[in-house]
Amino acid sequence: MARSRFEAMECSVARTLAVIGDAWTLLIIRDAFRGVTRFDDFQANLGIARNVLSHRLRLLVREGILERRPYSQHPPRFEYRLTAKGRDLYPIILSLLRWGDRWAAGPEGPPLLLTHLVCGQTTQGVLTCEHCGTPLDPRDVRPVAARPPVRAG
Amino acid sequence: MARSRFEAMECSVARTLAVIGDAWTLLIIRDAFRGVTRFDDFQANLGIARNVLSHRLRLLVREGILERRPYSQHPPRFEYRLTAKGRDLYPIILSLLRWGDRWAAGPEGPPLLLTHLVCGQTTQGVLTCEHCGTPLDPRDVRPVAARPPVRAG
Repeated sequence: MARSRFEAMECSVARTLAVIGDAWTLLIIRDAFRGVTRFDDFQANLGIARNVLSHRLRLLVREGILERRPYSQHPPRFEYRLTAKGRDLYPIILSLLRWGDRWAAGPEGPPLLLTHLVCGQTTQGVLTCEHCGTPLDPRDVRPVAARPPVRAG
Repeated sequence: MARSRFEAMECSVARTLAVIGDAWTLLIIRDAFRGVTRFDDFQANLGIARNVLSHRLRLLVREGILERRPYSQHPPRFEYRLTAKGRDLYPIILSLLRWGDRWAAGPEGPPLLLTHLVCGQTTQGVLTCEHCGTPLDPRDVRPVAARPPVRAG
């Protein structure tokens, strides 16, 4: 991944992808939202090579998305928990889930349903405008530059 | 990307990532939402190698996310437009944008603001429950298996 290249782009989508624009990283975050905290559990769930998992976890800790905390002294063992910055990735994970349910689940339907504990219903989640409450349709959203574009070099 | 491996996972997040779990692919989709339709415009915007762009566009057409349509006969030229399946990726792109605005924009703030034409306000978008309208907090959402898990092999 051309990480530094995405980071340098004047775009929040690109800069997010510089941090989490890798499928394994997103699956680790998915598992963290499901309550997985330990190296061996991530490894068993994902079937990922240990060195790849280790590298991704280090990156997520360095980025402040996961926090590494000791849960045992003898032997020394650590668990990984989402920080506030990490929990804020939830809309991304849920949007990925929802699209997959709709377009990639196959004839047997979505493997997972989500119960919303606030109202008790099975929820899919819908992206709405925080002002008027209407679901956001891309045709109703106009991007406006917040400032004149900056070009590198 | 271990595409076939993600496809085989019994998880809608993984299956979505099998299709779009690549940073360049997501930036192409971002540009399509901003109205880019032509090869040379994608290429100039992204600064991506032509063979990489060509490969990603072919993949997106094969997946039914972009539609390839002729816009000129002499010489033969094609444009790429989002299908319904592609437009349904909007919550993913907007969630990526929003997280980047919040956590990766730097001191100068987000480069882009979004005007919601329905209400005229600058919107960030919020993921809510379609039943009760409450913003979805991961701690209020319980995943429930829709059926007994299927294991390969």
